[in-house]
Amino acid sequence: MRTITAELLTIGDEILYGQIVDTNSQWMSVALSNVGIKVIRKTTVGDLEEEILNAFAEAETRADIILITGGLGPTSDDITKPCLAKYFNCEVRIHEEALAEVTEFFKSRGRELTEINRQQAALPICCEKVTNKMGTAPGMWFERKGKVFVSMPGVPHEMKLMMTDIVVPKLQKTFQTPTIQHTVIRTVGIGESFLADKIQPWEQSLPPHFKLAYLPSLGEVRLRLTAMGENKDQLAAESNRLVEQLRPLAGEYIFGIGEDPLEVVLGNALCQKKLTLAVAESCTGGYLSHLITSAPGSSEYFLGGLVPYAYDIKMAQLGVNPETLNQFGAVSEETVIEMANLIRTKFNTDIGVATSGIAGPGGGTPEKPVGTVWIAYADKGKTQTRKLQLSKDRMINIRMTAIATLNLIRQNLPQ
Amino acid sequence: MRTITAELLTIGDEILYGQIVDTNSQWMSVALSNVGIKVIRKTTVGDLEEEILNAFAEAETRADIILITGGLGPTSDDITKPCLAKYFNCEVRIHEEALAEVTEFFKSRGRELTEINRQQAALPICCEKVTNKMGTAPGMWFERKGKVFVSMPGVPHEMKLMMTDIVVPKLQKTFQTPTIQHTVIRTVGIGESFLADKIQPWEQSLPPHFKLAYLPSLGEVRLRLTAMGENKDQLAAESNRLVEQLRPLAGEYIFGIGEDPLEVVLGNALCQKKLTLAVAESCTGGYLSHLITSAPGSSEYFLGGLVPYAYDIKMAQLGVNPETLNQFGAVSEETVIEMANLIRTKFNTDIGVATSGIAGPGGGTPEKPVGTVWIAYADKGKTQTRKLQLSKDRMINIRMTAIATLNLIRQNLPQ
Repeated sequence: MRTITAELLTIGDEILYGQIVDTNSQWMSVALSNVGIKVIRKTTVGDLEEEILNAFAEAETRADIILITGGLGPTSDDITKPCLAKYFNCEVRIHEEALAEVTEFFKSRGRELTEINRQQAALPICCEKVTNKMGTAPGMWFERKGKVFVSMPGVPHEMKLMMTDIVVPKLQKTFQTPTIQHTVIRTVGIGESFLADKIQPWEQSLPPHFKLAYLPSLGEVRLRLTAMGENKDQLAAESNRLVEQLRPLAGEYIFGIGEDPLEVVLGNALCQKKLTLAVAESCTGGYLSHLITSAPGSSEYFLGGLVPYAYDIKMAQLGVNPETLNQFGAVSEETVIEMANLIRTKFNTDIGVATSGIAGPGGGTPEKPVGTVWIAYADKGKTQTRKLQLSKDRMINIRMTAIATLNLIRQNLPQ
Repeated sequence: MRTITAELLTIGDEILYGQIVDTNSQWMSVALSNVGIKVIRKTTVGDLEEEILNAFAEAETRADIILITGGLGPTSDDITKPCLAKYFNCEVRIHEEALAEVTEFFKSRGRELTEINRQQAALPICCEKVTNKMGTAPGMWFERKGKVFVSMPGVPHEMKLMMTDIVVPKLQKTFQTPTIQHTVIRTVGIGESFLADKIQPWEQSLPPHFKLAYLPSLGEVRLRLTAMGENKDQLAAESNRLVEQLRPLAGEYIFGIGEDPLEVVLGNALCQKKLTLAVAESCTGGYLSHLITSAPGSSEYFLGGLVPYAYDIKMAQLGVNPETLNQFGAVSEETVIEMANLIRTKFNTDIGVATSGIAGPGGGTPEKPVGTVWIAYADKGKTQTRKLQLSKDRMINIRMTAIATLNLIRQNLPQ
């Protein structure tokens, strides 16, 4: 079977100047590789007609599919659309359906459609419109001599919805893509190299049509098991068997299979067990609550949280004993146990958790350097704590603490 | 003056497959643009000889400088070095100084030098070695017919030190680089196209050596003003003058000049005015507190927050009047005013803010569809509210609400 290839072309001076990091192309790579399309090159060029036209022509000689992002805004520095019209040699005209969509978009936000926005509904007549549900600039799909060009906005959430809903399924239909089965095994609480050591025998015994990748991120390591073949059901059954063989080696770290992150998997478990949760977070400063409430439907089990950031607020609003704070400090096992129990009683929930630590960059001492964190879990029957020794980076420490706290809840869930 | 141009070439399958995000090239872009070298293209190719050699040749036709990262590891899939030797048509031999360095590197870590690592000291004889103080693979500097190729490791901290210490200064000396002045003007509370309409006369009157770019993100639009010339001080003075001319047209939306995001600019203002802040957030679920506390030093002005997610918690923990909730609902101007005043009194702060809305995807009604949000600001003397009609996307609504709330504080700061 022939490999279907794609090139990703990003257009925008802001990326060449380094003012934004291009995260789109990584996301797109994953989305394409999930359906068996191989990305062979990524290119970024600036907002210059000659550069853009050259990049189109070069990409067309190499790949089956050319996916373009950026340069579709309403302002004069955005020239992707006129460049595409020139490249495909066709005129630009107001597209009635696109105009209706952009008009509706503005109407639903109670805002007037300006002439500059009206022009976003003008499209080269030789392309097919790709609806943009999240913004005003439609995407464009061009086909010529077996090659496909798709132009999408650079705004990540607009591009992602367009890819997922329209572009990827249409590419699968246009090109006969091979059958690929990805299984994502999600682990938490263990580092990449330790995990690799533990699962080495399993990894070495994988059949040749399976490939394993380690995808570490802050506090979590995902294992992606990729199978390529012809029969989807057979590949899925083989993958499931392999996951079961992995469990005896690393089961305690596996919190889920698939795309759901820890906060969603945990939320589902709380929902199913009809348990409620409240949090008292100091060093995480609201991020733990945010993570929990980023899951739709979290109001079923999350009753609320308190961010007692100031020392006085810990006493006045949460009721932490001044003596505990005096004797052991805010960052201590004793304080964090009190916090978890207090928030549980105060909010009348089944489970209470608490975080307290030195997120940095300031506030460290020789005994409690930046990155020192205590977390606690409390339910009716027990209390559990953990001490973390994290990094010097504030945002990393906040994220790692929140993930470790969710994991502590997971490990202690009443049966 | 001629513009000195550079292309960035990243080599590695792991980037094409989307297994890692390429953050190197963004860092390199900034480092080069700071010294007036213009990045005109970024390219990523896989670990394939033909692809790599083609990419070298293409880049050489376009740019003065070709900076290559990746593919220098000791394993067989790393082929950047043999490709460079082939491209420049010269043999690879052990470089005595490089061998001494790599030997010392292993010795200092108490590890033995294996043959595979010894080979890292072999270099094409036509290149100049670029010392790698942080790792084992040396960089390589090639010059031919006025063009420079530099190959560096893909490991970020190794590449960065090499760039800062050796490559950038050597490029400045080799090419006579122009002076570039970037000014970033940060706005909030206005969309890209509306801002473009407002500032059109200013934009059209910009001198020819100035270029303007719009960099929109959720809830914010940055304007980047780039000037190129010879005298740094003169460009800076001109830029300042242009910013001052912009203020009468869009001053109310400009919250800062430079790299600091809204939460940091606002935090600095609160700190300077010695004002304290507390938040009561329902639909933002902790994200507003997180945004505020992501600024180092936020404990100076942020005393804490409450996330009264459940209906009962709004009454029991914050003290919202049950009648207000019954009569107007949780998502209403009346409720959010009470919340802002209550959190201010409860936490004894100068300023209290509150959010309540339907973040989605569920919970919408015909009168209050998903995306309906109320926010409120309260201080000793006044209360201000705003109604937002946002999107159907939960995470966007959370982010936009938090930004709008920070902006509401900014607009109402006591003098």
